[in-house]
Amino acid sequence: MRESYHEQLDSISDRLVVMTSMVGTAVGAATRALLEADVSFADRVIAGDAEVDTLRTDLDESLLELMARQAPVAGDLRTVVASLRISAEVERMGDLAVHIAKVARMRYPEVAVVPELRSTISSMGETAERMAGKAGAVIANRDLAAAAELETDDDEMDRLHRSLFLVLLDHDWVHKVEPAVDVALLGRYYERYADHAVSTARRIVYLVTGRYPQDATPA
Amino acid sequence: MRESYHEQLDSISDRLVVMTSMVGTAVGAATRALLEADVSFADRVIAGDAEVDTLRTDLDESLLELMARQAPVAGDLRTVVASLRISAEVERMGDLAVHIAKVARMRYPEVAVVPELRSTISSMGETAERMAGKAGAVIANRDLAAAAELETDDDEMDRLHRSLFLVLLDHDWVHKVEPAVDVALLGRYYERYADHAVSTARRIVYLVTGRYPQDATPA
Repeated sequence: MRESYHEQLDSISDRLVVMTSMVGTAVGAATRALLEADVSFADRVIAGDAEVDTLRTDLDESLLELMARQAPVAGDLRTVVASLRISAEVERMGDLAVHIAKVARMRYPEVAVVPELRSTISSMGETAERMAGKAGAVIANRDLAAAAELETDDDEMDRLHRSLFLVLLDHDWVHKVEPAVDVALLGRYYERYADHAVSTARRIVYLVTGRYPQDATPA
Repeated sequence: MRESYHEQLDSISDRLVVMTSMVGTAVGAATRALLEADVSFADRVIAGDAEVDTLRTDLDESLLELMARQAPVAGDLRTVVASLRISAEVERMGDLAVHIAKVARMRYPEVAVVPELRSTISSMGETAERMAGKAGAVIANRDLAAAAELETDDDEMDRLHRSLFLVLLDHDWVHKVEPAVDVALLGRYYERYADHAVSTARRIVYLVTGRYPQDATPA
């Protein structure tokens, strides 16, 4: 019985890793849709999110069943509750990738991002995708080094976000209001995506060490 | 023992109601800070959020303890898990009120919102505050009528959000990019705030009826 219980916990961890991988791919594809005005990529991200949602619903049901049947305590209970929270965070990362894809779709056949901000958005997309991969590694292997890297990646995301606003609010902005609003919202989506990836990792760090990194709480 | 257990569940519900009341007051004060460029209101919202965070942390600890000691099953387990999720949603509503207050603070002594959008933002603030109150009623009394009203309120919030974008992206926009970016982000904060209020109510509806309203899932 105990064996099967830990097998169930392992399966939950595996499914969370699959979800992080899916939302990592999604944010990468959404960024490509955005920068190349590629509507087929945008549509794939938008349609693919239903699968993430289903995985999350199934996972949450498994967690409830596991709690009801096994009544875990102490560390096991904390792991189950952390998994519930992580599934919510990762699902939200998928939603944010969809928001990005929808901006690409809305402006198609135009490229929503003005030329002088494309490299910033491209870096934000790469950072986001990398962070999803690392969040998966943290969940799979309780990899504290990857968790620490995520904190640095998040600082990088914040730096990119600030630099985006510097261009946006510069007096030399020659574009209209619409592309400004688009990149302001896009910046927010990437930043929130990164916050969720970090928060996921922090929950695992807490399970392993009993404290949040750098006295931070999950975002 | 069973009695004390249900007393604990009641206490949890009471604490969630207090949290919704606090974040309702916060979004009202943040809106006032915004529209009146009143920095003291903004600061109160920003400082007050720590209390919401503490309530949430304490509540989550109580829920974990309750799960560990009582090993609830069936409806009780679902109630406990829903409470964990609701505490996260309500805390997030508090964060969004802080984001609104920070925009007010950043633009002080200017009013961040351009004159032609002040009544829209004022309505969004009122709607948000009202929704927090109703979310509290849904939690306190499992009030399904209030839950249904929240769906309508959310439609109203979406309508306000769209009307804000119509003004923002109109060719007659005479303002610079900065106020456009401010209201675009503010619109997003109010809209997310409303989403969380609705999601909170849907979780209670699910506990009571076994299904989500209008086949919706929590936002």
